[in-house]
Amino acid sequence: MTTDSTGPRHQLGTDAIHTVWDRSLEPALHVVSGAEIEIQALDSSYGGVARQVQSGKLACPEALRGVVLASAFAVRPNTADMPGHPLTGPIYVEGAQPGDTLQVELLEVSTGAWGWNACRPGGIGLLDAEVPEAYTHFWDLRGGVWTDFLDVARVPLAPFPGVMGVALAEPGRHKTAPPRRVGGNMDVRQLTAGSTLFLPVEVEGALLSLGDLHAAQGDGEVSGTGIETDGHVILRVSVLKGQPVGTPHLQTGPEPTDLWAAGAYVTTGHAPDLLEAARIALRELVLYMGRRYNLSFVQAYVLASACVDLRISQLVDAPNFTVSALLPNRIFQR
Amino acid sequence: MTTDSTGPRHQLGTDAIHTVWDRSLEPALHVVSGAEIEIQALDSSYGGVARQVQSGKLACPEALRGVVLASAFAVRPNTADMPGHPLTGPIYVEGAQPGDTLQVELLEVSTGAWGWNACRPGGIGLLDAEVPEAYTHFWDLRGGVWTDFLDVARVPLAPFPGVMGVALAEPGRHKTAPPRRVGGNMDVRQLTAGSTLFLPVEVEGALLSLGDLHAAQGDGEVSGTGIETDGHVILRVSVLKGQPVGTPHLQTGPEPTDLWAAGAYVTTGHAPDLLEAARIALRELVLYMGRRYNLSFVQAYVLASACVDLRISQLVDAPNFTVSALLPNRIFQR
Repeated sequence: MTTDSTGPRHQLGTDAIHTVWDRSLEPALHVVSGAEIEIQALDSSYGGVARQVQSGKLACPEALRGVVLASAFAVRPNTADMPGHPLTGPIYVEGAQPGDTLQVELLEVSTGAWGWNACRPGGIGLLDAEVPEAYTHFWDLRGGVWTDFLDVARVPLAPFPGVMGVALAEPGRHKTAPPRRVGGNMDVRQLTAGSTLFLPVEVEGALLSLGDLHAAQGDGEVSGTGIETDGHVILRVSVLKGQPVGTPHLQTGPEPTDLWAAGAYVTTGHAPDLLEAARIALRELVLYMGRRYNLSFVQAYVLASACVDLRISQLVDAPNFTVSALLPNRIFQR
Repeated sequence: MTTDSTGPRHQLGTDAIHTVWDRSLEPALHVVSGAEIEIQALDSSYGGVARQVQSGKLACPEALRGVVLASAFAVRPNTADMPGHPLTGPIYVEGAQPGDTLQVELLEVSTGAWGWNACRPGGIGLLDAEVPEAYTHFWDLRGGVWTDFLDVARVPLAPFPGVMGVALAEPGRHKTAPPRRVGGNMDVRQLTAGSTLFLPVEVEGALLSLGDLHAAQGDGEVSGTGIETDGHVILRVSVLKGQPVGTPHLQTGPEPTDLWAAGAYVTTGHAPDLLEAARIALRELVLYMGRRYNLSFVQAYVLASACVDLRISQLVDAPNFTVSALLPNRIFQR
């Protein structure tokens, strides 16, 4: 257990990593309500990208592909029977009791120097049954505002933790992949610096953890990865009494409107099932992006995962519901 | 058939109404590629609201409720066996052939003086199984920019046709309720003035029709109605060769960012099925709106239908997918 109560801001490093949700985990840090904490987080490759960069191999991002794929898609260290996202925590917040709400103010979210996103046949992405080959794109995040995609487009950074949550009441180990009523792997891209998350507390101390930073992502995370990166998060935790929430709520700052300032190219899908409607809309958009910007299917697909929004246009006109995929025109303006 | 080729802009009034999709319908207008057309459209109450207003009863919007409910939810005139949206058209565009794309530029969309939206037990809305009573809200659209909701909020007008589409290749009559690969009742709120719609042509002449204007709507149209209104649409139609689309595409203008300039209150739902995830997120949000702004369940619900966006945050973290419901804070700032 790491404790640090010498300064106004606690520190929690990546030595405090766990890979399952479990209410019986020993807390890595105890804090009082109102405390600020700076948290280091690994990306979903367990820091594979960061390690390669530090060892001087960053001149050839293609060389990192094997590292990322091996670590991200294979069994991970110390989690042979239940691999999961590497999460930093858990943080025990004094006074938090079941039925309370844990308020988490995101003061700062910073990325590492490099990020990556990917797709592969048979993966978890929406169109992975249709991709002809695995593909990984590496994003140079050192510019801090925009990150280039080939010589075609650029995406604004809007970093957030893909995973943030508290422990479940149910005992035992729970996989990190699915989000739940207590949060977790929600991949809600609006959870950027300036926003506040409200989580339902189910165990004493709440047991907050986070990880899986994304430098940017569209609503949907369609290929199964945002722009995956390591980095750090500074947050303030507070216990709220008598303001219960049934699922995670957020108060966000303004939408980064710059991305949508030039409108969007939109494709629509219409089907009885929303997942299928989304698949139709996304397939139409990826094929359009390929034709329009001379991208391969997998290139267009991973670019879409970084910046395309899936909106539910209507879910009331049975038997067909409509999902729209929005591609921001702004990314093609240099 | 109405024809008007005396001026640069064609006119099509509400005498040209049909209530099913059918490739054998007689065209109400023939135009050449590049033509501009001004189209009058009824709302989904078959003009019931507009007629009441014109007869001097607008001083008491509550009195309109029976009219709207009777006409919107019951069997409609001349469509006893297949009631549908009252659509203006069809418009035959010369030169349009199956396999072509019909480009429709929306030059102007204007609403009537009043709009309405509603919910009712057992209706089509996402939470209609949970509403205790029918409720209709009437919106005064005469201000032209914002429309008030009680003394609680105001919603910016962003009018668009809920239904726009072309005839299906399949013969026979087809209901207007579901949208299809040729468009129709898509309820895509981004189809405002300044946007361009691309529709796949399946029959000679395309046979374009539209109707079901909405003065505003959130992504989702969660209670089953946007702000329903009559009005008119000015558009330009063009036939595109060799640029096929598989489903309707749009090129939009800028997002009306003013609505999101103050951030959003967001609730999340996590479930194996996207429709259920959306229901969880919306229920959380409607209950929150009730507590926070002292609204009844049905009041919060119909307000949400006018301005809350449903976004698919992720559909890759099986077994649970995440839908977020975004309430724009701006509507509460006076």
